Amino acid sequence: MALDVTVADIAGMIDHAILKPELTRDQVDTDLDLAARYRIFSVCVRPSDVAHAVARLDGSGVAVGTVIGFPHGTTSTQAKVAEAEQALADGASELDMVLNIGRLRSGLLDDVRDDIAAVVAAAQGKVVKVIFETAYLSDDEIVAACRATADAGADFVKTSTGFAGGGATIEHVTLMRASSPEHVQVKASGGVRSLDTLLEMKALGVTRFGTSATATILDELGSRLAGAEASTTEDASSY
Amino acid sequence: MALDVTVADIAGMIDHAILKPELTRDQVDTDLDLAARYRIFSVCVRPSDVAHAVARLDGSGVAVGTVIGFPHGTTSTQAKVAEAEQALADGASELDMVLNIGRLRSGLLDDVRDDIAAVVAAAQGKVVKVIFETAYLSDDEIVAACRATADAGADFVKTSTGFAGGGATIEHVTLMRASSPEHVQVKASGGVRSLDTLLEMKALGVTRFGTSATATILDELGSRLAGAEASTTEDASSY
Repeated sequence: MALDVTVADIAGMIDHAILKPELTRDQVDTDLDLAARYRIFSVCVRPSDVAHAVARLDGSGVAVGTVIGFPHGTTSTQAKVAEAEQALADGASELDMVLNIGRLRSGLLDDVRDDIAAVVAAAQGKVVKVIFETAYLSDDEIVAACRATADAGADFVKTSTGFAGGGATIEHVTLMRASSPEHVQVKASGGVRSLDTLLEMKALGVTRFGTSATATILDELGSRLAGAEASTTEDASSY
Repeated sequence: MALDVTVADIAGMIDHAILKPELTRDQVDTDLDLAARYRIFSVCVRPSDVAHAVARLDGSGVAVGTVIGFPHGTTSTQAKVAEAEQALADGASELDMVLNIGRLRSGLLDDVRDDIAAVVAAAQGKVVKVIFETAYLSDDEIVAACRATADAGADFVKTSTGFAGGGATIEHVTLMRASSPEHVQVKASGGVRSLDTLLEMKALGVTRFGTSATATILDELGSRLAGAEASTTEDASSY
């Protein structure tokens, strides 16, 4: 398959996840520096790391996002709003919130929509992505969550937290793309560990990827592009 | 071993956990009703279920607690405070907060203490338990967390969320009891699934248990006590 992308194209679609609760400050810093070196779109850090990440990435061109109600989505709407406000005050430019999974599965769809809409309002125009945690959901519930996300005015539907034992699947991102209006983008996260998975999902309309395998993915792309160029040069020189 | 406890004694030490993110309203209600039937000390519910649980358990004598910064502990202190305030407004009487695990492991102990102290202040005299997530910690880190908890004025040290792939161990509850002042109690949670585990930990000084195996544990105790009584009666009647 011809690769019609550059490393910068793919780097510009990556939110590098730095979310594990046990990571130390030094481990976080190693990942922040990696993000700057690869010039990816953004890091997605723990809420209590936002101010530190913004300071460390100042001037790098890498945005800082964080998570809200993460990873269970079961906090009160008021708590999600307070978290969002603090995240913005600390300098976050994107918010990945977890919807209320239990309410969704109970058919309380107005509650789910209102919970998202409150965070969208608190975000004051910053990008809001809504994490579904698809591993827990039926297809009907995923479709209902896409509707609630669009109705609430959020910007992205997102598959997974990476902490529920199941991540993005081809089936789920396809369903989420088909069930969302065109202006709502799809972010795949959880289990996006290889370039091939990323490219396959990109072809299905996914525009953002949450991963901690950033170096593996971008190094692989760099190697393939270098290989392709070498082979093109060789072809050209043989005729 | 002679059982010198009643079912009411043990029921009075149980916080029944209803925390899984995917639970529907009906599933939560089944567990709330079980808690009322067994007359346990409290339920520990998801923050967005507090108001509902308080209403459903009204008059049952079962208290309603909830979790703060759960399960990662990585939210900002401001968000934890807002969560605590909302939980109290919704009627919660106990708050199980997760400390900032990453900061603890980075040696930022003042930050860890201040984060706990802010929740203690917001709790306005309600019981605050501090979840360590011992599965991620060294013994030295557990001792440091016990000190931070005591210095911050919280009421309990608590082992685990139940979501980190490891729960309470005999070694950890022993260390936590030995490393905390007498007035700070110990709650064991995560993996407390049998009466024998509970009784062993109780003998070590644990005074509260977080479990979802409430029915199994109390039914087992009831059977053993009935068996002991039958055997005593039998002994008495044979002489």
